[in-house]
Amino acid sequence: MKYSALRKAVLDANFELYESGLVISTFGNVSAIDRQNGIVAIKPSGVSYKAMNTSDIVVTDLDGTIIDGDMRPSSDLDTHIELYKSFKAIGAVVHTHSFYATAWAQSGRAIPAMGTTHADYFNGTIPVTRQLTDAEIRDDYVRNTGRVIAEALGNNDPLAIPAALVNDHGPFCWGVDAADAVHNAEMLEAVARIAFHSRQISQESLEISAALLDRHFQRKHGKSATYGQPARSKQV
Amino acid sequence: MKYSALRKAVLDANFELYESGLVISTFGNVSAIDRQNGIVAIKPSGVSYKAMNTSDIVVTDLDGTIIDGDMRPSSDLDTHIELYKSFKAIGAVVHTHSFYATAWAQSGRAIPAMGTTHADYFNGTIPVTRQLTDAEIRDDYVRNTGRVIAEALGNNDPLAIPAALVNDHGPFCWGVDAADAVHNAEMLEAVARIAFHSRQISQESLEISAALLDRHFQRKHGKSATYGQPARSKQV
Amino acid sequence: MKYSALRKAVLDANFELYESGLVISTFGNVSAIDRQNGIVAIKPSGVSYKAMNTSDIVVTDLDGTIIDGDMRPSSDLDTHIELYKSFKAIGAVVHTHSFYATAWAQSGRAIPAMGTTHADYFNGTIPVTRQLTDAEIRDDYVRNTGRVIAEALGNNDPLAIPAALVNDHGPFCWGVDAADAVHNAEMLEAVARIAFHSRQISQESLEISAALLDRHFQRKHGKSATYGQPARSKQV
Amino acid sequence: MKYSALRKAVLDANFELYESGLVISTFGNVSAIDRQNGIVAIKPSGVSYKAMNTSDIVVTDLDGTIIDGDMRPSSDLDTHIELYKSFKAIGAVVHTHSFYATAWAQSGRAIPAMGTTHADYFNGTIPVTRQLTDAEIRDDYVRNTGRVIAEALGNNDPLAIPAALVNDHGPFCWGVDAADAVHNAEMLEAVARIAFHSRQISQESLEISAALLDRHFQRKHGKSATYGQPARSKQV
Repeated sequence: MKYSALRKAVLDANFELYESGLVISTFGNVSAIDRQNGIVAIKPSGVSYKAMNTSDIVVTDLDGTIIDGDMRPSSDLDTHIELYKSFKAIGAVVHTHSFYATAWAQSGRAIPAMGTTHADYFNGTIPVTRQLTDAEIRDDYVRNTGRVIAEALGNNDPLAIPAALVNDHGPFCWGVDAADAVHNAEMLEAVARIAFHSRQISQESLEISAALLDRHFQRKHGKSATYGQPARSKQV
Repeated sequence: MKYSALRKAVLDANFELYESGLVISTFGNVSAIDRQNGIVAIKPSGVSYKAMNTSDIVVTDLDGTIIDGDMRPSSDLDTHIELYKSFKAIGAVVHTHSFYATAWAQSGRAIPAMGTTHADYFNGTIPVTRQLTDAEIRDDYVRNTGRVIAEALGNNDPLAIPAALVNDHGPFCWGVDAADAVHNAEMLEAVARIAFHSRQISQESLEISAALLDRHFQRKHGKSATYGQPARSKQV
Repeated sequence: MKYSALRKAVLDANFELYESGLVISTFGNVSAIDRQNGIVAIKPSGVSYKAMNTSDIVVTDLDGTIIDGDMRPSSDLDTHIELYKSFKAIGAVVHTHSFYATAWAQSGRAIPAMGTTHADYFNGTIPVTRQLTDAEIRDDYVRNTGRVIAEALGNNDPLAIPAALVNDHGPFCWGVDAADAVHNAEMLEAVARIAFHSRQISQESLEISAALLDRHFQRKHGKSATYGQPARSKQV
Repeated sequence: MKYSALRKAVLDANFELYESGLVISTFGNVSAIDRQNGIVAIKPSGVSYKAMNTSDIVVTDLDGTIIDGDMRPSSDLDTHIELYKSFKAIGAVVHTHSFYATAWAQSGRAIPAMGTTHADYFNGTIPVTRQLTDAEIRDDYVRNTGRVIAEALGNNDPLAIPAALVNDHGPFCWGVDAADAVHNAEMLEAVARIAFHSRQISQESLEISAALLDRHFQRKHGKSATYGQPARSKQV
């Protein structure tokens, strides 16, 4: 089988995503990119997680043309591709309808950094996209979803804020590889859940200071990171 | 055993419903109809899910008369029959007291389409019935429950909005067959849960645009559906 | 071993309670009464559910004197005994700190009947006791807890409203036997959870009509009950 | 292996913490102190719970210098050490980002005693620290976290209020030994969860009386404790 290592990583990440409880029904997909060969491996559309195996993972080029695989790719493929084009440093994309992140998305609200759990993974507010126009929904909807995500990120480093909420829809996350992107999806849901409950307790602005935000993000991700064991760049 | 295929489908769907976590105690039941033979197969009343087998499934005609089976049918039988009479295209009915859908029902509030998770399964607001009058509660209560559901659906296509909330009570769902109806019950609960949390974050109207509602419902259910694999009409 | 049947029923009910997820740490206990012999069997105090066996169940008389058993009885024993004295028709008592019922108790609010799930088990508002006075807390606290429960029930039939919330504390439930009382504790938590969420959706009074309340309670519990199978008085 | 008994107790407590569901990702750690030898055993930083074994537990002195072990200690080590220095009676410290306790911490609110579940473990309000200044975040952040906890406890007996919420961050708990500290962390989360829901039901002050607070705390922890079996000082 061609591209079996990339496929295997995508399959394993889809399983991990399913086991994490973030997926409602079949609403979840992981892809990963091999930038050298210009190919993307992605979950097939609407296939049960239980029945999936490596050969079901679909391989396409960056135009979305199928290079290898018998299945139809996830219907979100064009969003993934758009994100790979916009964010050159990322290696994988994850989409879920996880409960709390989706509730924030449906409410049209970004998630401010309310605590250090947030700061450990997201170096600032997790943005929400603007709503798509009717024209953007009618034509090239899936690609436009990727475009408003890139617009919402603006000049932020995608690896410093590895998630966004698509308005009226749900979260997209990303990372350096498939396992990292799935881990970010899990942390987004945890952060969204704690933020939801914090806001219920207090309606005041709960945003933490820039000093604390930076202290925690750098502790895990900066050049002088002190978290985890030296030989490992990041603990998953 | 007579009607064993229909009975088996109903039994399996009842087990799936139980495993989905939607059922509180024995508050859940699935039926399916064989329109050619004019018979309905339904869960027996108040029997533990663990102990149920195919022969326990009760078979009745469309007047509710038992055709085959030793058990008493679900006490909700007349509601199911009323729905089969009103909605000619449906093949199965599911009733649960799933938490979030029941909370909306108890609140007397319909669930507007607040996001694409909703739009993927329900092509508009999930209606809530009016409250039954005292007279409707005293006489023919169970059948009247079916009548107010049909009244609440109005001119909507029941397969485009495959659920309704009975005021002060809980949800009824339906579908083309027993597995589809159970899947719709699971999706209703997920949609009700996300909608609950969305409303807690923002009290504004969160209804999505008609364009987005239609785009998502047609993606999964329209004639030119692009979701899932070509050979399969719908992924469950 | 003496009283082994009663002890076994109490042990099994304690296990069922533990498996139901209603128990926080060791905060839960079940007792049952043998009215002919005037004895009560109750869980030992602060013993892990995993390690408990039939001989650990403590047997006392109605003054709380240990008749048989090597362990110290639950520190709530005097509340149980007070309930057996006040409510002559009950055969078992259950105490938990289950989350939603305890939240209502801590809020000092009774749970009105907001839907049919409630009505199927509780024929009216689930009462909350008044707060104990400092004197009642200082002297004979545990027995006084039983007294304010009886006071809160007033003239209601304890088997028609088989639960009460002790203000600032948590729920006590009861039933005809140990299995029935545990089932009522499970249903109380489900009802408290749905009621909590209903109130979050709508702040209006959500109390159902007397006609609907009665229709549902009688369906399961009245002389002409139509729920369940004829040979069984009640499904658990 | 040196200090194997202390290491084993810390390892077991970390596993118990993981199984309790209180830990998000690797955000949780337990340490214990051997006061006679002036050493602390603590979880290694960012290591997966599944892969951890006794030799991974890091042993340091009270200056944070590693005495034994090949791994880097938890990045929260200096907070643990500061607590051991401030609270002479405690034998173990636990840190988690458990959901409800963290939501209270992010909201900057202390948790008043709203019921007896709280009173059984915490003899008064569970305090929240003040926010750290930018200077305290920049220099010696981890140790300063311990300092504001000690400041928040003030003159309270740390074993009477064995937890505090670090503002913008999450809970720290402690106890006489590692198992006790983990149990307190579990009870803190339960108490925080019930308190959250109580406040949603009623916005009134829900603080219980001093008499009830004292009655329950003394029942479990006082010299004349009546809870549990005589031979055991405390049930875990």
